[in-house]
Amino acid sequence: AAQEQGTDPGVSSAAIAQAVELRDQAMQGTRAYEWVESLTTEIGPRPGGSAAEASARQWAVKKLSAMGFSNVRIETFPMIGWQRGEEEAAILEPYPQPLAITALGGSVATPPEGIEAELVVFKDFAALEAAGPDQVKGRLVYVGHQMQRTQDGSSYGFWGKVRWDGASEVARKGGLGIMIRSIGTDEHRMPHTGSMEYAMDAPKIPAVALSNPDADQIERIAARGVTVRARLRSTARVVENLESGNVIAEIPGRTHPEQIVIIGGHLDSWDLGTGALDDGAGVAITMEAARMILASGWMPERTIRLILWGSEEGGVFEQADDGGLVGGRAYVYAHRDELENHVMGAESDFGARRIWQVNYNVSDAARPAMQLMETLLAPLGIAPGDNQSSSIGPDLIPLKAAGLPAFSLAQDGRDYFDYHHTADDVLSRIQPGQLDQNVAAYIVFAMIAANSSIDDWGWGAASDGN
Amino acid sequence: AAQEQGTDPGVSSAAIAQAVELRDQAMQGTRAYEWVESLTTEIGPRPGGSAAEASARQWAVKKLSAMGFSNVRIETFPMIGWQRGEEEAAILEPYPQPLAITALGGSVATPPEGIEAELVVFKDFAALEAAGPDQVKGRLVYVGHQMQRTQDGSSYGFWGKVRWDGASEVARKGGLGIMIRSIGTDEHRMPHTGSMEYAMDAPKIPAVALSNPDADQIERIAARGVTVRARLRSTARVVENLESGNVIAEIPGRTHPEQIVIIGGHLDSWDLGTGALDDGAGVAITMEAARMILASGWMPERTIRLILWGSEEGGVFEQADDGGLVGGRAYVYAHRDELENHVMGAESDFGARRIWQVNYNVSDAARPAMQLMETLLAPLGIAPGDNQSSSIGPDLIPLKAAGLPAFSLAQDGRDYFDYHHTADDVLSRIQPGQLDQNVAAYIVFAMIAANSSIDDWGWGAASDGN
Ligand SMILES: [Zn+2]
Ligand SMILES: [Zn+2]
Ligand SMILES: [Zn+2]
Ligand SMILES: [Zn+2]
Repeated sequence: AAQEQGTDPGVSSAAIAQAVELRDQAMQGTRAYEWVESLTTEIGPRPGGSAAEASARQWAVKKLSAMGFSNVRIETFPMIGWQRGEEEAAILEPYPQPLAITALGGSVATPPEGIEAELVVFKDFAALEAAGPDQVKGRLVYVGHQMQRTQDGSSYGFWGKVRWDGASEVARKGGLGIMIRSIGTDEHRMPHTGSMEYAMDAPKIPAVALSNPDADQIERIAARGVTVRARLRSTARVVENLESGNVIAEIPGRTHPEQIVIIGGHLDSWDLGTGALDDGAGVAITMEAARMILASGWMPERTIRLILWGSEEGGVFEQADDGGLVGGRAYVYAHRDELENHVMGAESDFGARRIWQVNYNVSDAARPAMQLMETLLAPLGIAPGDNQSSSIGPDLIPLKAAGLPAFSLAQDGRDYFDYHHTADDVLSRIQPGQLDQNVAAYIVFAMIAANSSIDDWGWGAASDGN
Repeated sequence: AAQEQGTDPGVSSAAIAQAVELRDQAMQGTRAYEWVESLTTEIGPRPGGSAAEASARQWAVKKLSAMGFSNVRIETFPMIGWQRGEEEAAILEPYPQPLAITALGGSVATPPEGIEAELVVFKDFAALEAAGPDQVKGRLVYVGHQMQRTQDGSSYGFWGKVRWDGASEVARKGGLGIMIRSIGTDEHRMPHTGSMEYAMDAPKIPAVALSNPDADQIERIAARGVTVRARLRSTARVVENLESGNVIAEIPGRTHPEQIVIIGGHLDSWDLGTGALDDGAGVAITMEAARMILASGWMPERTIRLILWGSEEGGVFEQADDGGLVGGRAYVYAHRDELENHVMGAESDFGARRIWQVNYNVSDAARPAMQLMETLLAPLGIAPGDNQSSSIGPDLIPLKAAGLPAFSLAQDGRDYFDYHHTADDVLSRIQPGQLDQNVAAYIVFAMIAANSSIDDWGWGAASDGN
């Protein structure tokens, strides 16, 4: 970064005063809970590409239009999706009993009659990798892990590997199917779904997750040194030719309408719960932040673009070279000629608890604006974090790969993976007051980023482009 | 009670010293967790009359024989049971989405194609009772309740009415099926099963429970004033000609072998979980209390009879005039000529938390023995409760109806109904250390009741006989 660091955030005192006023107003109570209550109650589960997800887009358009946003629209895109079917698993020998499982997103089905085979038990992915094909061939495979709670969710990427890559590792060694310990930190009979991927060099075999107590049960049985036989049946399938879409609403910029500051969350959810934490909360928080700015009558210098992303959780966008984040990839594809107009962006997608840290990676020129943001976020209990962060909301990853500077408002995720991608991700998980603090923080972010006269925020400067 | 109250508990100082020593030894650590781990891992769910319940009896006989108990045996009995099938429910209109349900024990199936009908919503049983047939006829019916946590579990009887009697109340008014809010105090997507009953004067209609969040969802939708249509399908069925049994093991009495002091828990469980709390814990606690007395070499004056009851949860014993408690009813039937030989009895069937209170209803003559018990229980944190209690473990209710004095060691049940009769009733729920305190308390009970020279404990004296 060869730029000189200034000291002027380039924000008028009127804009700062307005940001403070709206922030404090949000802390007195917002309508965010009302939006997530409405979305989760009236739409329920919203898998990417489903009719329910389409209903959620209609729901959003109706709400956003009624709120008075400009340019409310749906940018649709084609996608390949996935649908859960019937699913069951059991230990057959030596201790017959049913197992609580759920298929992983993208997994193929078992043969219609299911698979019955010896179940070989590996405590983690490293043990599976170390195993020879003779240990795996012709068998069902269980793989555990030791994921622990973290505040920042950073354990997910490491331990999640068994979910993303486990099936192909088993298939390469001749295994018939994989049952993983759920990528989750709870102790309930709630299996956690989530997307998985098939490598090109391996047969596609079915992949499911066991609830943590069921995984404990299998490990206890294996510890007895007995040979275990198990049964697995799933009729999950890939579904072609679906349509999804991103819902967009704007507060147009007064002086630079073409320059965009994005906030948003993703509209889709997994099928098991109603997606209250993932990501009804993010939708509600960012909708409400934008609504409060709009309702105040404040006209920002840049356009504030609220994007409620489609199909974040899984599926394939054919123009992309990787699965998932379909809405984010489709957005970059659709806006490929105007990507550099995106100044900054933030997505809320880590549940409904309070934000505790702000992280970013911007140009030196933009540092004064970020320092102003930190000053305005501190009264919300949000501390400055890492200024060389690569963290950004998932739907902004494709835009970040194109050049968008990293930015994130980190929520406290200590119990996020207790509920993540389970049937238990429902409205009961949300404490309304904690949403208000999130709304206040997104107001600060959007107001400062959209009203600062700083030009260079660091587009394209991130060293790894990802 | 015309008897004169004495002051002598009739227990030798050697017996008291032995009770204290075993009690304190238990508090240093017991093997109770090992037994419940073994039962729940190696057998899993154990529905009354099932092959798994038969395996549990074999498990118990093997363990008890190895421990060296006398007269280890199974007293089998015929029963009518029930089997869950496929089950599904959904809201069809205006907000289509799946619902997490489970059939209630004893419920009939829906027609094979399911029921699709308007869903009428009543906040509780009183509202259902107040409704006219015009509100119910031809419809599916939801009924809620307002059960709160209690330490002593006393709210279960009152709020449970909708589970036991709801279906027939709906059927009398022409309803097609009932979905109740689970009789449970948690906020998870875990529907609670449990037995229900059909009245003679009403058609039999299917009955299921919704998880509490699903019940909340239905109430939120109904609060919007919309007409709700729902779908319900279940293939549950009654199964005739099953066999269950009570497993019995004894420490024979030295001077009065024919006089019996019972301790025990029930071997069967619901099908959804592995019955760790209900009632693997009770089995383990009382097995271990008896084992420790046996292993000490102490020979009690009376016989200590450990009974691991069969089919407590549901089913029908044809010689009885009411459903459930099949093992308890079969025991009274089988032992109908020697009932008065039963001096005292206690069953552990309220989870795995510490005991906080002792309650009973004995003759004045037996009060000194109970006061001694209270003195020995106090160091365990157990306070004297109500001396006019009618409380006793469920499998002892038929014996209490015949004359057995009431006695109970009350466990802290504040979270018992979070897990009761759900898939979440598994080993993870148990904290090993809390079992040890229970073992210590059952040792005190059995040692004092089996070694006191008091003759009259109040057989047949309870005013209501129930
Ligand atoms: Zn998400
Ligand atoms: Zn997700
Ligand atoms: Zn029980
Ligand atoms: Zn029970």
